[in-house]
Amino acid sequence: MHSRGKRKREAAPAAPEKAPKVVRIGLLGRGTVGSAFVVELEELAEQILKDLRIELKLVGALRRSEGDFDEILGESDVIVELMGGRHPAGDYVEAALRQRRHVVTANKQLVAHSGQALSRVAAENEVHFRYEAAIAGTVPIIPILRGHLLVTHIERVIGIVNGTTNFVLEEMANEGLTFGEAVRRAQELGFAEPDPTEDINGEDAAAKMAILSRLAFGSDVSFADVDFEGIEKVDPDDLGYAKEFGLALKLLGTAERRGRSLSVRVFPCFVSNKHPLAGVHGPFNAVTIDAPAVEQITMSGPGAGARATASIVLNDVVAVAGGRPQIDYFGASQSLDIDNAGQRSCFYIHMIVADQPGVLARVAEQLSEHAISIESAVQRGLGDQARLMLVTHECDEKAFWEALLDIAKLGVTRSDPRAIRVREQA
Amino acid sequence: MHSRGKRKREAAPAAPEKAPKVVRIGLLGRGTVGSAFVVELEELAEQILKDLRIELKLVGALRRSEGDFDEILGESDVIVELMGGRHPAGDYVEAALRQRRHVVTANKQLVAHSGQALSRVAAENEVHFRYEAAIAGTVPIIPILRGHLLVTHIERVIGIVNGTTNFVLEEMANEGLTFGEAVRRAQELGFAEPDPTEDINGEDAAAKMAILSRLAFGSDVSFADVDFEGIEKVDPDDLGYAKEFGLALKLLGTAERRGRSLSVRVFPCFVSNKHPLAGVHGPFNAVTIDAPAVEQITMSGPGAGARATASIVLNDVVAVAGGRPQIDYFGASQSLDIDNAGQRSCFYIHMIVADQPGVLARVAEQLSEHAISIESAVQRGLGDQARLMLVTHECDEKAFWEALLDIAKLGVTRSDPRAIRVREQA
Repeated sequence: MHSRGKRKREAAPAAPEKAPKVVRIGLLGRGTVGSAFVVELEELAEQILKDLRIELKLVGALRRSEGDFDEILGESDVIVELMGGRHPAGDYVEAALRQRRHVVTANKQLVAHSGQALSRVAAENEVHFRYEAAIAGTVPIIPILRGHLLVTHIERVIGIVNGTTNFVLEEMANEGLTFGEAVRRAQELGFAEPDPTEDINGEDAAAKMAILSRLAFGSDVSFADVDFEGIEKVDPDDLGYAKEFGLALKLLGTAERRGRSLSVRVFPCFVSNKHPLAGVHGPFNAVTIDAPAVEQITMSGPGAGARATASIVLNDVVAVAGGRPQIDYFGASQSLDIDNAGQRSCFYIHMIVADQPGVLARVAEQLSEHAISIESAVQRGLGDQARLMLVTHECDEKAFWEALLDIAKLGVTRSDPRAIRVREQA
Repeated sequence: MHSRGKRKREAAPAAPEKAPKVVRIGLLGRGTVGSAFVVELEELAEQILKDLRIELKLVGALRRSEGDFDEILGESDVIVELMGGRHPAGDYVEAALRQRRHVVTANKQLVAHSGQALSRVAAENEVHFRYEAAIAGTVPIIPILRGHLLVTHIERVIGIVNGTTNFVLEEMANEGLTFGEAVRRAQELGFAEPDPTEDINGEDAAAKMAILSRLAFGSDVSFADVDFEGIEKVDPDDLGYAKEFGLALKLLGTAERRGRSLSVRVFPCFVSNKHPLAGVHGPFNAVTIDAPAVEQITMSGPGAGARATASIVLNDVVAVAGGRPQIDYFGASQSLDIDNAGQRSCFYIHMIVADQPGVLARVAEQLSEHAISIESAVQRGLGDQARLMLVTHECDEKAFWEALLDIAKLGVTRSDPRAIRVREQA
């Protein structure tokens, strides 16, 4: 190795001291993330003062049973909203923006539902509305989409934006747990909330995909535009058999542009083990951006956790305090139609079948009548437990669901066929 | 799936037209990347004008045999330097900054050797010196380190920052090619230059790690501070056997802080298949950032390619034109000592040995005398072709190299033992 041993550095000459800029912070919410924010702030305040000449001061905190919003607002330059939920957080945030206070939030429900309107209020009042921590945990989305790739024409954004479901699916695949067992383990480890409904049914991911799509395509997308399904129906069997096909199951959020229209969806999907998202483990989040000019950029990081969220929120506060410009979806706005119809996909099908000759032939015939061809088929087991697993070539999704209904009517299956999308290409 | 069908968007009301800001670009270098930049600019100029009200105008281009620098400088607001190499590019860049022109470059040699000084000249003249495309291809490093994680305490940055070597190592591992064959294939596919010396010997990666370290740790690191070795000595055998251990070979750049000191190195290293960098394929680059507050963030994207580089350069030009602040390592500056000594690592050892009893025992004894213990050992083959492969537990690197010399002296090996570092933890 070309080595030159140890080298001592002279300390850089101290910069001429200028008076620090004092920035007063009002905190809304003192739960897990709020408390982590206070700790992070205390730990880094001195360093920030030294390096950036910014003095961050916490002037007040609003809890459910303590503190007065108007009083805190009056004393603050920046409001940090970590209450979560749309109400009353949304009213506080809007009031703060109208009083020309910058706002930093990690509240995905609020940003997904009202982000567009709140950003407009912020712009009118010439203050910041920043929400990096609301999208994909620590994964740096906004500086990439609205900075690094601002003038790059983006075709597709695919994300694992819910850490709970990623953890649950991986536990089912690796440990053979049932869905219920995996959810309980996630709760024990703090990766799932006591009521994990919104994670499990895809609603949380849908909210984040709405925000992501707005940022990536500069187009107005709200939560109601996103089609979503969750992972409740996934069976450990599916995961076991999928391993044989070299596939990993992920809850994907996809936002894809075709011409003047945009589809935004969330659904469980098998991805090839070579796909960059297949290697995203545990409660991590990741986002892949496809753009012809830069091919494919992938970013991953922890999806949640109080300290990580607090850290990203603090970086947003420093961006505000340091006079960075607001980077948002305004200024490069397109109007794409939202169109989630007319999609094509490959599918995996699982069915328990009558153990009699000709079942595969009859299923294949039904698929063929809907112009769907089979890529691979595996039959396992005997008697009442005989299972048939298929993977189709890419087909029209609407035709596929119709074919599946027709297959159920054949009288050769002992259970409703289950189907999961498959994404083999990157 | 919760679906609501197709939704038509009303076009957003047109923003009141303001006069566009005209930004004149002088281009230095009209090679592959320079030409790609011109194409990218032509393709996106209209969109940029429409969305951002910025009119980008190419006023002149300097080629080896054509154009006059002073004339181009006189007519430009921004100089885009895509000549490559330190001379004469460095003189042009410095002259441009002193004449208060912004500069955007993709020139890693220049930024690694003179980036610190040039950034200072830029700051004195209140202009931008931007070089995102010079570090890790399309991987967005600067906005992450100097924005998203600006106040996050970073412990470690590990990168695959040379696409040529990543491609070569992967071809050797997957296709069983020799080093020479893999390099030729990389050249045929345009992933290696006609003279790939600086890629292969680690020099290119070392230059990029110097820049990356400066950005991550806000400390003065130059090319001369980086210890590096290349991949010239890697043998297809090593890659074959390593597969058995579940390892992938990568040329890693590492920048790690320990207290007040920083080590910055480049070396071939086996990483566990579960490491986020193991899944970085072909000529891609990737960077992993470890910081206690956010655990681990990983980003990957194409490492080179004229169009991708041009696209990132154009985004930098737009950042300048749009009045974004310069984000650089100044303003959060530490002085860490560079200390590449005292490192610890696990090692893989390969040796061709005399096929006689007691060889493993004698090798193990030598290692043991240097306080190095063996994690696993495999012996293969017979007679003159008997091979012994070992993986050690973590040990002091200096002690390891001494032990290896002592082993060579034992007279039981038929070739010099080869050793490669192993990184099993993330």
